[in-house]
Amino acid sequence: MVNQSEPLYLDDLQVGQRFTSGTYRMEEDRMREFAAEFDPQPFHMDRAAGEASIFNGLVASGWYTAAVAMRLLATGGLPIANGLIGYGGEIAWPKPTRPGDVVHMETEVVDIAPSRSKPQGVVTIRGKMMNQSGDVVYLLTAKLLVLRRA
Amino acid sequence: MVNQSEPLYLDDLQVGQRFTSGTYRMEEDRMREFAAEFDPQPFHMDRAAGEASIFNGLVASGWYTAAVAMRLLATGGLPIANGLIGYGGEIAWPKPTRPGDVVHMETEVVDIAPSRSKPQGVVTIRGKMMNQSGDVVYLLTAKLLVLRRA
Repeated sequence: MVNQSEPLYLDDLQVGQRFTSGTYRMEEDRMREFAAEFDPQPFHMDRAAGEASIFNGLVASGWYTAAVAMRLLATGGLPIANGLIGYGGEIAWPKPTRPGDVVHMETEVVDIAPSRSKPQGVVTIRGKMMNQSGDVVYLLTAKLLVLRRA
Repeated sequence: MVNQSEPLYLDDLQVGQRFTSGTYRMEEDRMREFAAEFDPQPFHMDRAAGEASIFNGLVASGWYTAAVAMRLLATGGLPIANGLIGYGGEIAWPKPTRPGDVVHMETEVVDIAPSRSKPQGVVTIRGKMMNQSGDVVYLLTAKLLVLRRA
């Protein structure tokens, strides 16, 4: 597991390369605020409603979890020199995140497709977010535009 | 295109059923704030940096776009009676969203898989977000847990 801080270009990447991010604490207030703005469902905003739901407690919006994952990748978790520019990908939430969870991202390069005509390529990364107990709470497979070194 | 307001159960859904959401205006200030918190990359936070980037202007974080899509679905765009509970799915950003864009979601039911043992099913929806010019700026295919009517 590399905790790489030097920004990387396409030339520096290889399949199997791994990265680990810092940590982020899911605060209940921020979870609720995010939900009120973007995902106003009772089980994301109200403890009693969470308790009464299939989640057995207040849980974060999956989109808050996804945004936190991006923050972890963009602040050192995946140091691509030209930034993290995604075409899209696949996401999953195997378990919910809950107030007080401390999460981090572990990411692996799974494919590198250099362009034949431009000094760039499409790099596929597979990331997982784990909480403080080691439970996987979020999975992300994403295709990124990565430039060659100038 | 149904603009359905009555909350729907599994019993009410059929493949091919369509929904359309209200609209949301992407405000530059909110785009920049979201980016500062979750996706602090220069082309999401600073006009000059956006102009100098491959985007030729300030663009929203794709995760802000994704969160806005959820808001549109959760506030009438996809009225599932037990709420919108997603297992995961696929996302793509064919074009960026920009300050002042007015977006909405159009969604279609593409698969319904009833459980054999429980009064519920997994419903696959395919949604697209369009801006005021009709450009598709976000695609979402998601698997949702939907309950049968009690």
